[in-house]
Amino acid sequence: MRSIRNIFNSQAKDQGNFFMSISKILRFKPKTLKFYQTAFTHRSMNIKNSKGHIINYERLEFLGDAMLSAVIAHYLYMEVPGGDEGYLTKMRSKVVSREHLNELGKDLNLIELVESKIPKGQFGDNIHGNLFEALVGAIYQDKGYKGCERFIQKIVIEPYVDIEKLEGKVISYKSLLIEWCQKEKKIFDYNVYEDTGNDDVKHFSVKLSIDQKVVAKARATSKKKAEEKASKRAFFAFQNQISKASFI
Amino acid sequence: MRSIRNIFNSQAKDQGNFFMSISKILRFKPKTLKFYQTAFTHRSMNIKNSKGHIINYERLEFLGDAMLSAVIAHYLYMEVPGGDEGYLTKMRSKVVSREHLNELGKDLNLIELVESKIPKGQFGDNIHGNLFEALVGAIYQDKGYKGCERFIQKIVIEPYVDIEKLEGKVISYKSLLIEWCQKEKKIFDYNVYEDTGNDDVKHFSVKLSIDQKVVAKARATSKKKAEEKASKRAFFAFQNQISKASFI
Repeated sequence: MRSIRNIFNSQAKDQGNFFMSISKILRFKPKTLKFYQTAFTHRSMNIKNSKGHIINYERLEFLGDAMLSAVIAHYLYMEVPGGDEGYLTKMRSKVVSREHLNELGKDLNLIELVESKIPKGQFGDNIHGNLFEALVGAIYQDKGYKGCERFIQKIVIEPYVDIEKLEGKVISYKSLLIEWCQKEKKIFDYNVYEDTGNDDVKHFSVKLSIDQKVVAKARATSKKKAEEKASKRAFFAFQNQISKASFI
Repeated sequence: MRSIRNIFNSQAKDQGNFFMSISKILRFKPKTLKFYQTAFTHRSMNIKNSKGHIINYERLEFLGDAMLSAVIAHYLYMEVPGGDEGYLTKMRSKVVSREHLNELGKDLNLIELVESKIPKGQFGDNIHGNLFEALVGAIYQDKGYKGCERFIQKIVIEPYVDIEKLEGKVISYKSLLIEWCQKEKKIFDYNVYEDTGNDDVKHFSVKLSIDQKVVAKARATSKKKAEEKASKRAFFAFQNQISKASFI
């Protein structure tokens, strides 16, 4: 039987672990931990507060979704001054698509932190996006709109939002580059390796060679992203030759 | 022929008038007037900036819509701690309904300030809501999220958002009160009169009498709202009697 003291110690340790994990994801120290605890409490936990209100991440999802939409709206408004209302609406719906939010949640491995009575393997794919929205809601509660904006800028916009790709002008730099190499009979090679370094999150590096010469390097949180980043760099390095080949 | 000097004077005067009008609506002094000028520029003006981007209120509508949704989401989140995600979503859609936004824009008489080549009489009803959204977008640009939140709190939430009414628990306090008076054979009278006082916007006051005794007073920007406000006050003053009559 655990003594009261042991229970307290164990609670403090759990809280400490949660604080560490959440700080790594946020890349800042949370002020009020309980917002984040709510953001990772699944309805199956069936928790109520002293007023009888059900506590789980679903309400925070609603709040986070609204804040995400607002921040992305402002970003696109500023970034594309020539885009009309229809364009902005379409672009935003691409950034905050269910698929994209699931990808974000998955990359941050949010599911690791969920408190649930349902085995994690039984959740569908949408849990990732839902947790991501709830996390944004918790950040709003903890740090206000400005804090929320900073997080979204760093975690969503900088690594994921590429207006040209969203516009469908470029689907994938990797496929463009490969097509060009094949047309020009050039040999290409993506040398990908794990390279987490001092980062908290797993990272990958890639060296892209064309005709056995390294032409671009990149590093990102997934193999696919690192390859795409390197391809984009190579694409712009070879842009003159590529357009001479009237490839695009 | 007007001299350059006269033209400048006349522009300055126009700007001064616009500044006065917009300050009255905002209830604060704008920092950067051009955001508000854009918010009241209709597409028919066909204005482009030096970069060739079309300038009218439609992009600001997109921005304002996003900010309004975010602020209302947070308001409802805090105000109804027992409401789940579905409830919050439904409530928000009532507050930011096209009909409600049109009402807000109309009450603020925003159409007066529109610069357009189309006669104002030819606009449909949605112009009012669109201008309201664009105005919120301009406030965001001028004063940031906090400024936007303050405006929405003062102009939308305080005078218009009544959770009980939105929930459909109470459709109209006036109709409840009248029904009760009729049932109890009480004589009621709404004495409404214009009472703008020192306000910039037209206001109405109402004295509500029951059996020739004034039981509630209220003041608002429309007759309907003043009557509803007074009815609500009377309703709560008589709540005991009303519930004894097992009216609700």
